[in-house]
Amino acid sequence: MTKLLIVSGYADEYQRLFEAEKLPTLEIATAKNSAEAEATGLDYEIVLGEPKLIRPILMKLRNLRWAQSMYAGVEQFLDPSLRRDYILTNARGVFGGSMSEYVFGYLLNHERRIFERYRAQQEHRWDGSTTGMVRGKTIGLLGVGSIGAEIARTAKHFEMTVRGYTRSSEDCRDVDAYYHGNDLIEFANELDYLVSVLPNTVETRRIVDASLLNALPSHAIFINVGRGNAVDESALIHTLESKQIAGAILDVFDQEPLPTDHPFWTAPNLLITFHTSAPSLPEDIVRIFRENYLRYLRGEELKYKVDFERGY
Amino acid sequence: MTKLLIVSGYADEYQRLFEAEKLPTLEIATAKNSAEAEATGLDYEIVLGEPKLIRPILMKLRNLRWAQSMYAGVEQFLDPSLRRDYILTNARGVFGGSMSEYVFGYLLNHERRIFERYRAQQEHRWDGSTTGMVRGKTIGLLGVGSIGAEIARTAKHFEMTVRGYTRSSEDCRDVDAYYHGNDLIEFANELDYLVSVLPNTVETRRIVDASLLNALPSHAIFINVGRGNAVDESALIHTLESKQIAGAILDVFDQEPLPTDHPFWTAPNLLITFHTSAPSLPEDIVRIFRENYLRYLRGEELKYKVDFERGY
Repeated sequence: MTKLLIVSGYADEYQRLFEAEKLPTLEIATAKNSAEAEATGLDYEIVLGEPKLIRPILMKLRNLRWAQSMYAGVEQFLDPSLRRDYILTNARGVFGGSMSEYVFGYLLNHERRIFERYRAQQEHRWDGSTTGMVRGKTIGLLGVGSIGAEIARTAKHFEMTVRGYTRSSEDCRDVDAYYHGNDLIEFANELDYLVSVLPNTVETRRIVDASLLNALPSHAIFINVGRGNAVDESALIHTLESKQIAGAILDVFDQEPLPTDHPFWTAPNLLITFHTSAPSLPEDIVRIFRENYLRYLRGEELKYKVDFERGY
Repeated sequence: MTKLLIVSGYADEYQRLFEAEKLPTLEIATAKNSAEAEATGLDYEIVLGEPKLIRPILMKLRNLRWAQSMYAGVEQFLDPSLRRDYILTNARGVFGGSMSEYVFGYLLNHERRIFERYRAQQEHRWDGSTTGMVRGKTIGLLGVGSIGAEIARTAKHFEMTVRGYTRSSEDCRDVDAYYHGNDLIEFANELDYLVSVLPNTVETRRIVDASLLNALPSHAIFINVGRGNAVDESALIHTLESKQIAGAILDVFDQEPLPTDHPFWTAPNLLITFHTSAPSLPEDIVRIFRENYLRYLRGEELKYKVDFERGY
């Protein structure tokens, strides 16, 4: 038997889904948190779970060979002081659809002035002024992995121009122009929308800083659905307060939950959401695990392996 | 020379665009309203304009051979007491993109609970609850002309199921299932979203009535971007007040502008906009006119001809 530990707030739902899957030679234990997990003894070969719940038991899993994260973000595993004697895989290819709906929900909300229209309605005021469109606009993606590619695909559906800023990859056919390295200001120049999908790595830290924000046109909108550490939060607040860009939508922050006295709650033209742009759905995660587990049993290379050095 | 009258609130912009076009043998007069038009003498062979501005002078255009509407809706021309001794063409194929952005802007706004998220932000409340997606949902289109087809194309992009209710046509490849005639209740059954793109005709009058609305699931959303007369407004208000559906978004009404004391301004879960879902853009209209005018000069059949009996 292969011993698997599932550690998740949704452990019951995972239990139910795994029972239906009937994966071969698998002996499953579930836990809703790290303490429960620890109480089961920690002689598991595989762990599947939320990174923040695996982190406290990571060093104690004495038989660990493979950890499958339920999330895309795996910063909890990357501290150089932590073990790296196992295979780490993350969830990929399942968040793009939801992220893309989030990004276009907010972009269309902006263009259609949905909040303003509602204020006119509340005032019983017929406002026949025209609104904008995303068609013809230029969107810049910071990061073009599977999520960025899905946002790019939707952008092309809406007949937009797509720029991509990446470390080196240029393999998404929906990106019209690629930028790398020092091209960041040129990339930002004349963007209508800037969207960060960047993971939390040393290289992406504070990449959205004052100089990048200053390079955007005054009508630009910034959206962050990647990780909070990509943004210099003070610089963004200053940019919004001085109306150097038209607005921002943030789903991720340096500190989550956002502290109740953080200036983001009340910054002008800023909409915040609560790290909810792309939920990790148990059905999707079980499908990913299933595929990887069958590879594992056959001794094949696992999909979605994380490079500890690169950080994604 | 061929004498053309342009009658539009945007006459100056049309004048400028036509000067750049340099269409052959065309002598152009412009007017901002019907009275100005009348003052120019009315010996025009062609009129291009907003239907409500053409209507008062329609019977006096003694040399009229062709009227090109700047809008899709041409109800002002259809009264049986009016002349029909000329060719009427409307604007088509240019509103789908904007209508589609409107429909998906509001659907994503609903699924992402953008208003609720904003309320949470105003209360400094971190709300990590998950939101919905349009992916996997079923949308039903009342009317599948060029606008309905564009909405269907966007729905398929977002991996939705598309139903179409039409008089008889079945030529849109993005519609998964067609319904006609008495299939209306079957069409509405289990729809997540119902969208009317219907023109103002005798046959479509009050098609969205109590029985159709009652056939929708309680979580359904209704959107009207066609014409107001397709909806039984009292039935819709009752449906919203009794929470038989989750909400509605209306861009068109029986009477426009909507009277300030109309119950729609304050009906629960109803968002209204102001006949602004798809503006008529002069560049688009000039392109349509140009193509048709060259056909006209060559004696060919015009595109987008309106059937006076059918009404579109």
